[in-house]
Amino acid sequence: MSTSLVIAIDAMGGDQGPRVALPGAAIALARHPECRFLLIGDSAQIEPELKELRELASRSRIVHTDKAVAMGDKPSQALMRGRYTSSMWMAIDAARKGEAAVAISGGNTGALMAMSKVCLKMLPGIERPVMAAIWPTVTSECLVLDVGANVGATALQLVSSSMMGAAMAGAVFNRRSPRVALLNIGVEEVKGLEEVKRAHVALRAMSLPFEYRGFVEADQIGHDAADVVVTDGFTGNIAIKTAEGTAKQVAQYLRQAMEQSLLSQLGGFIAQDAFRLLKAKMDPRRSNGGVFLGLNGLVIKSHGGTDPTGYASAVDLGYQMARAGLLARIIKDTTDIVSRTAGALAE
Amino acid sequence: MSTSLVIAIDAMGGDQGPRVALPGAAIALARHPECRFLLIGDSAQIEPELKELRELASRSRIVHTDKAVAMGDKPSQALMRGRYTSSMWMAIDAARKGEAAVAISGGNTGALMAMSKVCLKMLPGIERPVMAAIWPTVTSECLVLDVGANVGATALQLVSSSMMGAAMAGAVFNRRSPRVALLNIGVEEVKGLEEVKRAHVALRAMSLPFEYRGFVEADQIGHDAADVVVTDGFTGNIAIKTAEGTAKQVAQYLRQAMEQSLLSQLGGFIAQDAFRLLKAKMDPRRSNGGVFLGLNGLVIKSHGGTDPTGYASAVDLGYQMARAGLLARIIKDTTDIVSRTAGALAE
Repeated sequence: MSTSLVIAIDAMGGDQGPRVALPGAAIALARHPECRFLLIGDSAQIEPELKELRELASRSRIVHTDKAVAMGDKPSQALMRGRYTSSMWMAIDAARKGEAAVAISGGNTGALMAMSKVCLKMLPGIERPVMAAIWPTVTSECLVLDVGANVGATALQLVSSSMMGAAMAGAVFNRRSPRVALLNIGVEEVKGLEEVKRAHVALRAMSLPFEYRGFVEADQIGHDAADVVVTDGFTGNIAIKTAEGTAKQVAQYLRQAMEQSLLSQLGGFIAQDAFRLLKAKMDPRRSNGGVFLGLNGLVIKSHGGTDPTGYASAVDLGYQMARAGLLARIIKDTTDIVSRTAGALAE
Repeated sequence: MSTSLVIAIDAMGGDQGPRVALPGAAIALARHPECRFLLIGDSAQIEPELKELRELASRSRIVHTDKAVAMGDKPSQALMRGRYTSSMWMAIDAARKGEAAVAISGGNTGALMAMSKVCLKMLPGIERPVMAAIWPTVTSECLVLDVGANVGATALQLVSSSMMGAAMAGAVFNRRSPRVALLNIGVEEVKGLEEVKRAHVALRAMSLPFEYRGFVEADQIGHDAADVVVTDGFTGNIAIKTAEGTAKQVAQYLRQAMEQSLLSQLGGFIAQDAFRLLKAKMDPRRSNGGVFLGLNGLVIKSHGGTDPTGYASAVDLGYQMARAGLLARIIKDTTDIVSRTAGALAE
């Protein structure tokens, strides 16, 4: 684990650019001291930030560009204005050229996906990138994908997502035969979207490098029903945002309940360690970072509005994916099977 | 409010049939003493239950049938075997004939929807029924529809759901100009499913009996972003189940945190009233009951696995809808507008 690993940071991505990305990278560096960073963006903004972050400064190289993709840019605009020259593109391109093992950006998702696709190209047999996110469960964590890269999915796309998700679960959770399930509105075979049902039939018929568990309902995602939950980007985005909103809502109920009387306030004071533990467990920053899968290179999307702690989680995730050789795993597991599936589904 | 109101109960619907439906109806009766009930199902199973429920017995009429729709029946099977003769059909039919103001069933959703559609028929201009559910928010409640009646939705169907949802919000929350929003994966107009974007354009262009608020993201549903959140049945089902699962998950985290040390246990003991309050607030039985909208009659679906307390919530909801004259409101508000929309969308 002592060989160095280079991470490319799109320093201009995210609502606050280098003011979050750099302290975030510094936190991650403290956890993985063998990392080196390419800090890509406006050096006039990067350098002042680095003054406070000596360790990071000594392990980083600044790659200057004054072009940056704006948070509101449409993918096509971003590509037109920022291809080759923007910090986002250059971070991805560093991953393409092998100068970095992984690229991290807090920039806008659509632009990041479009640029990654154009720059890195897709893996053989994969039609488009999907975004995978880590979803905390009652006893551990699972992966959910796609959480927003694409609207809708064909059966073949759901099957390739299953393959890639399983490969990522192998890398991130170190599971040999991850349990993979398709998200549906019932566990019966008659229910759901046509493409989800077709993907189910295809997955059941195949010999797979993971354990296919059939359909899972949305209330089971957080209750350890599977290691990998596969759905299209519209549904996955709705699910992950519903979970975020509900967790906040319950936290708010709890606060209100604890403030209702002097007695409950006293109880809350005495049990404050428990509440601290709960708060840490529910901290959305812990699971910040979406992994683009299906590309010929590793790209991690950090939440645009996160803080340095959250950004560091995205860097950690990128580090972990790169260390585990995720790309090679995906290539090994999916390429052949996906082309076989395409054949089976076309029949 | 003293005129009596008759509620038809499909006593055989749900995992436990009359053993839940009857005590549930009895709880609701205590809250709405002017109610009368038609208890439809196997009298050999209904009568013994009624022995313990004297008040209910005195306000009810048993309508015997030995046919019941099974929880596992497909809609087509249910219609083939249970049309005219099953307790589910007969409950719906009582609403059609005006013998009851509303029908309640805990039976299987697909069968209930198919039978309701065949028996009651759709309202003019409405293509198919949708199911609306009450979703607790931080400060009050909102409606979400469709939560599982249909997979997918056209722009026109989303527009009619908006109309019907607004009418229901008027009835259930007593709001004059409810805020209605379409569920989407971003608030920008470029994102999302084609049909959702088309519905958005149509709603923005129309003069409406409610306040159209544009897109809402899933994390805002529980945070009072709108009174009515409109989506298709697949997405709505995923959202509501994700919320249920997440609420349970957070509750479990909280229990674990409170049990971690003697001190936290002591604090929890002192603050037990607060936890009781929280538990009551998060009790899923409080918001049990899905309302089928778009039919020429009122049908409420109770959760098949609920207990008498939950069943009583579904009866309450049916009572409230009937008292508020929901059906007349929907007919008044939607019919004309939906046909105008169909014209606009076809252009």
